[in-house]
Amino acid sequence: MQLLEERIRKDGIVKGEDILKVDSFLNHQIDTVLLEELAREWKRLFKNEEITKVLTIEASGIALACFVAKEFGCPLVFAKKAQTRNIAGDVYTAKVESFTHGRIYDVILSKQFLSSDDKVLVIDDFLANGAALLGLIKLIHDAGATIVGAGIAIEKAFQPGGKMIRDMGVHVESLARIASMNETDGIVFID
Amino acid sequence: MQLLEERIRKDGIVKGEDILKVDSFLNHQIDTVLLEELAREWKRLFKNEEITKVLTIEASGIALACFVAKEFGCPLVFAKKAQTRNIAGDVYTAKVESFTHGRIYDVILSKQFLSSDDKVLVIDDFLANGAALLGLIKLIHDAGATIVGAGIAIEKAFQPGGKMIRDMGVHVESLARIASMNETDGIVFID
Repeated sequence: MQLLEERIRKDGIVKGEDILKVDSFLNHQIDTVLLEELAREWKRLFKNEEITKVLTIEASGIALACFVAKEFGCPLVFAKKAQTRNIAGDVYTAKVESFTHGRIYDVILSKQFLSSDDKVLVIDDFLANGAALLGLIKLIHDAGATIVGAGIAIEKAFQPGGKMIRDMGVHVESLARIASMNETDGIVFID
Repeated sequence: MQLLEERIRKDGIVKGEDILKVDSFLNHQIDTVLLEELAREWKRLFKNEEITKVLTIEASGIALACFVAKEFGCPLVFAKKAQTRNIAGDVYTAKVESFTHGRIYDVILSKQFLSSDDKVLVIDDFLANGAALLGLIKLIHDAGATIVGAGIAIEKAFQPGGKMIRDMGVHVESLARIASMNETDGIVFID
């Protein structure tokens, strides 16, 4: 998506060969006008699908998912990072390995908000190793719900997550796919 | 605000005398139609104010703040809960005591996203002891920015936060103010 690629080129900051900071518009400061446009693009890409829930993971996916849920006219649910080791109550759980923070954490989702009737569109800001997305897919499977697809803002296509998730048969729509990047040459997008 | 009070009566779950669960529409599953209406109400309440930034704290404030930022046509910034003790880089920091989770955590905000020129509207889902709001106000003060006001969805008016923050001279607009609640008698709203 040209709008997003241009914004990444303009305001994204590349560090080394695998860190892309988009703090100024996507996941710390948030440009809601841009996010609405991204949401409309996913609405177009998944226009023939019935979607009953948008699912994301706290915290940086929430803003994007809000606007997507509004476009599709359905609720948004976000998986929470568990605060304690003692997970109580009726929740689905999954473990997610964070490469950024170098640790494994549990995510939880209350069972009352995802059921076998649900047709779920997953939304997240980044797809790199696919760890967060795998965790969300596990929650959907545990609920017996159907995954319609995954809408990703920025895919680091040089990392294995995108291929892994597509090989599972999931319809992934990434709005900007990065083939490679480094501080000297900048960012090369796919397509 | 009648719409919110009705929704709390319908879908809120009171536990004991101080816990109100609104997981089904406000902070786990999110009704984006409702949130847009709340955002429009704050737009009306702060209509004479110039606002350059909406500020909230992850994770449950983000969804609300998204729609408010869209109404005001300005960016949203959210303070992040620090992942490590070693806070690096150019950030403002504050300590927030979580009564829910029984611990003190650090919140951080990148200095590049809040400056002395900013006129800030703070948005959060709950106001009870005022700890999170105090932390956000400290970030605004540290930046030399101006706090225009605070928009709160649900104020537990029987807890001290609301009075404390108003006594500091902050213009607080809570859309539902709870005078008291318990499992037997339900919820009594102010006004």
